[in-house]
Amino acid sequence: MTVNLHDSAYSLEKAIRQSDEYNNLTKLYDEVNADVSAKAMFDNFRTIQMQLQQKQMTGQEITEEEVEQAQKTVALVQQHEKIARLMEAEQRMSMVIGELNQIIMKPLEELYGPAQ
Amino acid sequence: MTVNLHDSAYSLEKAIRQSDEYNNLTKLYDEVNADVSAKAMFDNFRTIQMQLQQKQMTGQEITEEEVEQAQKTVALVQQHEKIARLMEAEQRMSMVIGELNQIIMKPLEELYGPAQ
Repeated sequence: MTVNLHDSAYSLEKAIRQSDEYNNLTKLYDEVNADVSAKAMFDNFRTIQMQLQQKQMTGQEITEEEVEQAQKTVALVQQHEKIARLMEAEQRMSMVIGELNQIIMKPLEELYGPAQ
Repeated sequence: MTVNLHDSAYSLEKAIRQSDEYNNLTKLYDEVNADVSAKAMFDNFRTIQMQLQQKQMTGQEITEEEVEQAQKTVALVQQHEKIARLMEAEQRMSMVIGELNQIIMKPLEELYGPAQ
């Protein structure tokens, strides 16, 4: 890989690390992890979320009961102020990553067209 | 989004555009597109590939016949020198993008652990 590519990627990595979005996210993540009940609630939510994602990715059927359980867990964690703030920060970070990816992937998109 | 993030992403985008891997890829892509029979063969291969991917992503069953057809098409396009070289260049580019993503995603991986 060209040296310039590596250097540019590391500059972007550093910029992400120094961004408000990332620092806000780590701060809120540490806050949730430092709070025993918040952490347990959040871990439980994550596990359910990942199980459903895995089922979806492998084409397994998701039962109505599972959907209901997931919805209840979302509603529950959103009541918790620290977790709700962390989830907002995650969403903002994920939007930033999406925007960065759109910029970086432009050369390939131009080659193959927007459909690919 | 922080200005610095945007700037860094655009620098990386420029570095990709100027990389040997990208320039080699565009050159070979143009060569295939300029060759009527190669282009038809490659387009057909792409269509089959995308149909299978879509089926896989939406959890639809892929028949044995479809797998066989896909394998035959791969074998066929790999016989074509121009297409074979293009596919190699695509693989190299895709590896580069993978490496770049690993670098960029490090801050988030550190936060959530390698499992996520």
